[in-house]
Amino acid sequence: MAIPVETFFLAPEAEGTLQAQIQQMIAQGILSGRFRKGEKLPSSRKLAAHLGVSRITVTLALTELQANDYLEARDRSGYYVSENAPEPPAFIAPTPRADTIDWSRALGRRFTGGDTPEKPQDWARYPYPFIYGQTDPALFDHTNWRHCALRALGQKDFQALTADYYDQDDPELIEFIARHTLPRRGILAQPSEILVTMGAQNALWLTAQVLLTQRRTAVIENPCYHALRDILTQSRCHLTPVDVDRDGLPPDALPDQADVIFTTPSHQAPTNATMPRARREALLAKAADMGALIVEDDYEFEVSFLRAPLPALKSLDTEGRVIYVGSFSKSIFPGLRLGYLVGSKAFIRECRALRASVLRHPPGHIQRTAAYFLSLGHYDSLVRRMGQVFSRRRKVMEEALAAHGLDVAGRGVFGGSSIWMEGPAHIDMGQLDARLRKRGVLVEPGAPFFHGKRRPRNFYRLAYSSIPSERIAPGITLLARELADCPE
Amino acid sequence: MAIPVETFFLAPEAEGTLQAQIQQMIAQGILSGRFRKGEKLPSSRKLAAHLGVSRITVTLALTELQANDYLEARDRSGYYVSENAPEPPAFIAPTPRADTIDWSRALGRRFTGGDTPEKPQDWARYPYPFIYGQTDPALFDHTNWRHCALRALGQKDFQALTADYYDQDDPELIEFIARHTLPRRGILAQPSEILVTMGAQNALWLTAQVLLTQRRTAVIENPCYHALRDILTQSRCHLTPVDVDRDGLPPDALPDQADVIFTTPSHQAPTNATMPRARREALLAKAADMGALIVEDDYEFEVSFLRAPLPALKSLDTEGRVIYVGSFSKSIFPGLRLGYLVGSKAFIRECRALRASVLRHPPGHIQRTAAYFLSLGHYDSLVRRMGQVFSRRRKVMEEALAAHGLDVAGRGVFGGSSIWMEGPAHIDMGQLDARLRKRGVLVEPGAPFFHGKRRPRNFYRLAYSSIPSERIAPGITLLARELADCPE
Repeated sequence: MAIPVETFFLAPEAEGTLQAQIQQMIAQGILSGRFRKGEKLPSSRKLAAHLGVSRITVTLALTELQANDYLEARDRSGYYVSENAPEPPAFIAPTPRADTIDWSRALGRRFTGGDTPEKPQDWARYPYPFIYGQTDPALFDHTNWRHCALRALGQKDFQALTADYYDQDDPELIEFIARHTLPRRGILAQPSEILVTMGAQNALWLTAQVLLTQRRTAVIENPCYHALRDILTQSRCHLTPVDVDRDGLPPDALPDQADVIFTTPSHQAPTNATMPRARREALLAKAADMGALIVEDDYEFEVSFLRAPLPALKSLDTEGRVIYVGSFSKSIFPGLRLGYLVGSKAFIRECRALRASVLRHPPGHIQRTAAYFLSLGHYDSLVRRMGQVFSRRRKVMEEALAAHGLDVAGRGVFGGSSIWMEGPAHIDMGQLDARLRKRGVLVEPGAPFFHGKRRPRNFYRLAYSSIPSERIAPGITLLARELADCPE
Repeated sequence: MAIPVETFFLAPEAEGTLQAQIQQMIAQGILSGRFRKGEKLPSSRKLAAHLGVSRITVTLALTELQANDYLEARDRSGYYVSENAPEPPAFIAPTPRADTIDWSRALGRRFTGGDTPEKPQDWARYPYPFIYGQTDPALFDHTNWRHCALRALGQKDFQALTADYYDQDDPELIEFIARHTLPRRGILAQPSEILVTMGAQNALWLTAQVLLTQRRTAVIENPCYHALRDILTQSRCHLTPVDVDRDGLPPDALPDQADVIFTTPSHQAPTNATMPRARREALLAKAADMGALIVEDDYEFEVSFLRAPLPALKSLDTEGRVIYVGSFSKSIFPGLRLGYLVGSKAFIRECRALRASVLRHPPGHIQRTAAYFLSLGHYDSLVRRMGQVFSRRRKVMEEALAAHGLDVAGRGVFGGSSIWMEGPAHIDMGQLDARLRKRGVLVEPGAPFFHGKRRPRNFYRLAYSSIPSERIAPGITLLARELADCPE
């Protein structure tokens, strides 16, 4: 690859002759790894014109660099970074110049320091990855996804790929969601009541910004999805955690006053509880009494492989009280970042305006690819296949857990992709995590799911969505051994 | 396509016999357009099991629907929506049920009502689209983009496509930006000083959230990019507009106190002014005096086809004072939604945490595709080709404007993709816009770029980025005629 001439700048404050400055500039580029062996330099003519110096100065500098083996000349074709040039480590940009800004003062708001834990990006290297929410390469329908993406890259879809949609979405994806996806959940909605989002995360975030302020109160489940808690903490609203039981969020335990209730009726995250129909109706009635809105994160409804999923809470809503959050990221793949929000027009309108300000719209190509993947039936097949495989893995996991006498805290009866576990009371799973990783076992410590300062530290999540069946039993054996080895 | 059984729900409050309810449910699906002609219904066995009713009830309902020509039976293979079924209009979801929520109270914050104007999505249908910021199909390198996207969909990049990066980015794209893109602007940065964003819009938005609060002051250029003004208005900071001149933002006109200065030195938006080197240094010195940070939106530097672009303001910054915003969306295509933010580590860390909360990360596939498109040199070729074509179009436009004696308010001397125009003082370009559109001419009224209540209404932007050369002169002729026809 040729190094473009625009890469070269003489520092205005540099000292020494022009020739020395040019030599230094090129040598530093090589030493820092920016220019690599075999890459071609611009011609002396171009470089001279670009830098505004005489050609002879550049030629002298290049000749000198050749003598020092930084560069090599090839007949008629110019100078290249020499194969014998000094070896840079990897590319490491120079240490930044002294930063004189007082960032503790300059930052108006801080967003670091939330509950969301750091997770290992190299999870696939662990032999026993009981990791949650990543794609299993053995399950994902890569061929058909590729096929749909390719089709969405075609001339026919040029507009969908390239256009600035301003605040709008791909009409084909919206139509599919309205006509096929939502009716399966018992929901009928018009296009103006649907907004495509960058995953469920983005849907929850938009909802929080539009509905909550410092003067408003949100109810969250305890335990709950830690990233939701971070979103709400950042919104500075009052937070009222309500402990869930084996049927999910209990309406009787709700406070008298709240503005918004966040809930996961299909599969409570992380306990996997499914809210029974009667409780859904009680929750709606209670919310109406309180004058509260409900945000339904229809989390993991699609992996209800043990029993058919119940219709969404939103399908029972006759008042516009329920805001519905759906996602394709989980069941297609998390790197997709595609979800949607369904709610009353007045609410969606504000979310749309905010989304436009934050990022305009989710990329057109991704929306169109998903529309094809859904409408050609690949999504349904994928979900069916996931259900079959998860069902087998779950059985293996339950047997292994029983064999070792490990305590299940929440398994749910509809399916899901994980089991919620309770370790012995004296164990801190956060601490055990490092030891488990050394053994190649990846579990998810449960403390970040809980609210408040004194969080139980002995819970953990074991997912079976990315681990092959045959690894489950040996992984559980290692886990059981480490748990048993923990001193009381 | 088969209609999935999960689409069917009996409404709990429904009246009439079960058989009547089933008939009604299916007929309504057909009448509303949800089920389409030729689509296959689930088998009576499946439907009965799913609804929890006897099979004979379902069979009777289906037979009845067949008799009424809603359905047709095909030997052995089941029931299909009949070709003679009543015609639905297009798919129109039923009007939402009465929404009893008082949204004027329920909405905590409003985001609608900003300055960003609605733009026509069907711009390509206009014969004279002097529209700004859309892709010209004649210029974009669709073949190579497709090639790169396909490569990024390959087995080798499976992880980059599907993984949840949490708060991280594609390391290959980050490395390319650090090693090639930024050095061309005279900037050296480490990976921890770079964050990939959903276009420049998202970069500006993240920056505003992290740096500004209700107690802080931001300087903006006047006129300026309206969407930036909307972002800052939503942040509730104090806004101090400073009028630009033909060299962009004048440092002498800055107030004594401000926290953040937003500027577009490469090409002032919308006047196209390029800030000279001396003024850049004066701006940096003035900001240091004020203790203010500078946000440099390096807008349109890549279309400097008349003269080589000046190094970025950020390249002159030795203190960490400048935050740099770059974008690929403009020069590749706006639907891509890909940009980046460069700044001190402490700042990028907070932006990264906020981005994770808002949307996690830009989709992996898009990041990897861009990394290929850049590293294979297609981006450079595209920018070169755009420069050549824009240069010709600009010449044609300047000639046509001169021939009709239309007033240019800002053209810039480095290039760009538009010319900033001043109409006669008595003309309201917002009103003229509707008349121009009827003639097939699309221009951009300039009022939304200005600050405050009494905005000049006679400015407008004429872009040459999406209109073929040969349409420019006739389009300008129509424009000149409409302007001349306006009563004083």
